[in-house]
Amino acid sequence: MIYELYYWPEIQGRGEFVRLALEQAGADYVDIARREGDDLPGLMHYLQDGAVPQPPFAPPYLKAGDLLIGQTANILLFLGDRHGLAPSDEAGRLWTHQLQLTIADLVVEVHDTHHPIGSGLYYEDQKPEAKRRAADFLAHRLPKFLGYFEQVLARNPAGDTHLVGDTVTTADLSMFQMIAGLRYAFPKAMARAEKKHPLLVALHDRVAALPRIKAYLESPRRIPFNPMGIFRHYPELNA
Amino acid sequence: MIYELYYWPEIQGRGEFVRLALEQAGADYVDIARREGDDLPGLMHYLQDGAVPQPPFAPPYLKAGDLLIGQTANILLFLGDRHGLAPSDEAGRLWTHQLQLTIADLVVEVHDTHHPIGSGLYYEDQKPEAKRRAADFLAHRLPKFLGYFEQVLARNPAGDTHLVGDTVTTADLSMFQMIAGLRYAFPKAMARAEKKHPLLVALHDRVAALPRIKAYLESPRRIPFNPMGIFRHYPELNA
Repeated sequence: MIYELYYWPEIQGRGEFVRLALEQAGADYVDIARREGDDLPGLMHYLQDGAVPQPPFAPPYLKAGDLLIGQTANILLFLGDRHGLAPSDEAGRLWTHQLQLTIADLVVEVHDTHHPIGSGLYYEDQKPEAKRRAADFLAHRLPKFLGYFEQVLARNPAGDTHLVGDTVTTADLSMFQMIAGLRYAFPKAMARAEKKHPLLVALHDRVAALPRIKAYLESPRRIPFNPMGIFRHYPELNA
Repeated sequence: MIYELYYWPEIQGRGEFVRLALEQAGADYVDIARREGDDLPGLMHYLQDGAVPQPPFAPPYLKAGDLLIGQTANILLFLGDRHGLAPSDEAGRLWTHQLQLTIADLVVEVHDTHHPIGSGLYYEDQKPEAKRRAADFLAHRLPKFLGYFEQVLARNPAGDTHLVGDTVTTADLSMFQMIAGLRYAFPKAMARAEKKHPLLVALHDRVAALPRIKAYLESPRRIPFNPMGIFRHYPELNA
């Protein structure tokens, strides 16, 4: 079976968490919208066609045979089961998903540093608010989240090299993406923060060195970070 | 087995989505923090004790025998499986969870109408920003979410009385809570919006009339909506 991934073609965004899982799984997939013209008919079909019985609210969504699966964490729950990227026992599956959902919460907070008032407004129309929100995020929220995940690594009974057990899970892949994105968006804050979170930095490097991930990151399939995605580098937000 | 629910004792908050599932399941549970003194030693143990191997990031969390499950949607995924509050087939489980995660996204956006800058700041310290964010939410986001869920009901091949299939799922329970909360927080906007979303209103009423839910809502276990929770009624945000 060939998976069909549907996501905006010009950004990493939430789709990137799915791309990383598909790549590490060695799965056959087509990144549909990147092959389409400007109108994105395939992507839009599932959002706009009233005949779709179980429509997604927003991209990304993944077509897997007859299944159409939306919500990033839900897609990763599915892929984790299918491709051995999560433990097979109930406790391990739930714990992996719990971490993924906590990463998803952090993704929202990162997004809202540049869009604190409205996702449909331009950044330029909410700059003063973005400065306040980003300052609060860097002072309070980022340390709380990073400290939490560093503790998860430190307390892992199977060792501090993975978030769950002693093999790569979707949570590890997503944490790699989080660290990479935070470095791009907030280089000054991360330069300071990384000194306090050596296990997270080591996890990032370990994932980046996985053969399939390394090949992906060096390929044209990896869209560069850019000022349209979730992780945005606005120097004024990381003074 | 008696479940232990850990959540802030004075608000409905995210814990309420779990309480509703436990009540509809007829499950034995203890709402731990509501029995504790001001220091909340039980609740704090799992957040603060460095010996907890798989710590939650934040309440709510549910202790189910040896399992400690965090993240609201993750807890509902677990309870849905255990208590027949979700389909047992993979496609139905994923779809129910997808809807739950979309409701969770809406919960964040509702929360941020009164806390657009920082969850650790007082509302009074972010009032101008809250007014802008709430206006954008009511103009753009609320109609998009409600329109989406109304469509999910309308397109359900099993009928428009439930979000998934033709029996009550955790998604229905959570949507009841969402409608109830939105009515409390934004009475003017909801009075207008409900006319356009009759299926959601009917779902709310149907869930409220379920015998176990009805008994719960009339009991002291149901904490009233109040200005400390996620759904807050600030008249200036719903002019």
